Amino acid sequence: MELIEIRNLLITIAYVGTNYHGFQIQKNAVTVQAVFQEALHKTLSVLPDIKGCSRTDTGVHAKQYCISVQTDSEIAAEKLRDALNFHLPLDIRVFSVQEVLGDFHARYSCKGKQYQYLVYNSREIAPFLVGRALQFFKKIDEEKLNNAAQRFVGTHDFLPFSGNKRSVEDTVRTVSRFSVTRDGDLISFEVKADGFLYHMVRIMVGTLLSIARGTLQPEDIDWVFETGQRLNGCFTAPPEGLYLDRVFYDLEADG
Amino acid sequence: MELIEIRNLLITIAYVGTNYHGFQIQKNAVTVQAVFQEALHKTLSVLPDIKGCSRTDTGVHAKQYCISVQTDSEIAAEKLRDALNFHLPLDIRVFSVQEVLGDFHARYSCKGKQYQYLVYNSREIAPFLVGRALQFFKKIDEEKLNNAAQRFVGTHDFLPFSGNKRSVEDTVRTVSRFSVTRDGDLISFEVKADGFLYHMVRIMVGTLLSIARGTLQPEDIDWVFETGQRLNGCFTAPPEGLYLDRVFYDLEADG
Repeated sequence: MELIEIRNLLITIAYVGTNYHGFQIQKNAVTVQAVFQEALHKTLSVLPDIKGCSRTDTGVHAKQYCISVQTDSEIAAEKLRDALNFHLPLDIRVFSVQEVLGDFHARYSCKGKQYQYLVYNSREIAPFLVGRALQFFKKIDEEKLNNAAQRFVGTHDFLPFSGNKRSVEDTVRTVSRFSVTRDGDLISFEVKADGFLYHMVRIMVGTLLSIARGTLQPEDIDWVFETGQRLNGCFTAPPEGLYLDRVFYDLEADG
Repeated sequence: MELIEIRNLLITIAYVGTNYHGFQIQKNAVTVQAVFQEALHKTLSVLPDIKGCSRTDTGVHAKQYCISVQTDSEIAAEKLRDALNFHLPLDIRVFSVQEVLGDFHARYSCKGKQYQYLVYNSREIAPFLVGRALQFFKKIDEEKLNNAAQRFVGTHDFLPFSGNKRSVEDTVRTVSRFSVTRDGDLISFEVKADGFLYHMVRIMVGTLLSIARGTLQPEDIDWVFETGQRLNGCFTAPPEGLYLDRVFYDLEADG
C-alpha cells in the first residue's frame, strides 16, 4: 500500500490586471487563473484544482491575491515559488508559497479584504497612469470625501451599493475602515471589510465621486441604508483604478 | 501672389517607452517619432518634418519630451493638442502646443536636460514596476551613493562615461546636479546637465550601482576623470529605469 501525502498550499501573488479578463477562468478569454494554472501545470506536471480568494473584473489589479491548492507534489515551497515565477509572465508574480492546514481555503477561510482605488485628479492625462488609475478632471476635496466615506463604515445591507440583483444570499457586510487621502494629484480610496458584494467598491467610489461632482450629497448615503433604495446619479467607477490590496486570514486558526 | 505663413510650434509630450524602439524613426521598428508623425499626418493632412529634443533608446521613458515642427496650418494650438491626443495611443500624450520664434529647434535650442533613473531596491519583484524601474537586490546605502554622485558634478570630459567611441566632437559636459534619494523601496537618481553623451546617464548610474555592490569605489570616478581611462567593473544600467524628466529652453531668447 502506498501512502500519498496531500499538502495544502497558500500561494500569494500580485498582478497587473490590464492584460487579463479578470482572475476567474473563462472560455475564449485570457484570465489570471488560466495563465497561473498553466504555469502550475508546467511546474508540477499535473493540473491541480486551484481556489482563488475572489473574482476580479477585467482590468482590475491585485497587490495581494491568495490562491490555495492541494497537491501531492513534494516540491519545497521556495522552489515552487521560483519555478512558478520562471513560468509566469512578468505581470503576474508569486511572492510566497506556504504550507497550511488541510481545511484552509483561499476564499472560504478569508476573514476580510482591503481594496484600494486610485483616482488621478488632474486635467492632463499622465501616460504612466493609463490603465492604473481613473482620471477625474474636477478638483476633489479629499477631506470632504473622507468625511462622507465614514457613512459607509459599519454593518449595513450593501445590496443597493452593489451590482447584485436581489438574491437569497446575505448581503449584509461590515466595513471597518474607509479612508480618502491625497498624495499630489493622486487620490487613494482605501476600504476594508469582512467581505464585498459584486461591484461594491466601484459603486461606493462612484458614489463618492458623484458627491465630488455635486450630483449627490453625503446624506444620500444614509438615505440608501435607511430605505434600501438605489441612488440615481451615482455610477460604477471603472475597473482600471481598482486594486485588491490585502487579504486577511486567521492562519493560526485556519491552517 | 499668395503669402503662406509658416508657424514654428513647440510640442511637449510624455510617453511610456515600453512599446517603442526609442524616439527616432527607424526602418522596421515602431518608434515614438513614427507614431507621432502619423498622428500629425492625420491631423494636418500633410507630413511635416519634426525635430525631437533627443534620441532615446528602446524602452526608455519620457516625462517631458519636446518636439519642434514647422507648419503652414492655421490650426489653433489647443485644437492641435486635442486632435493629436485623439489620434495618439494612450502611452503617448501631448501636454501642450505653443508657438515659438522661427529659429527655435527642439534639439539645438536646448539648454539642458534632466534625467531620472528609478531603481527598485527589493528582493521581491513588483509586477507594477516591471519595465518602469531596474530591480536591484542588494540593499542600497543611498546616502553613500548620493555622496559618490557628487564626484560627477562639474565640467568634465565624459567620454569614458559614455558609449561614444573617440570622435572629433566635443565630449565635455557640465553636470550641474546629481542626487540619489530613497522613497521606500524606490531609489531615484536625478541628474541635470547641459547635455548628455550616448548612454552617459545609464553608465553613470551603472557606476554608482557598482559602488553599491562594492566592485568599485567612489574614488574610481575621480580616477576616470584624471586619466581619461574607462573603468573595468562598471556596467550600463538597462533602459527600463530611465526617464527623460525635464528639458530646458531659454524661450525668452529663443522663441
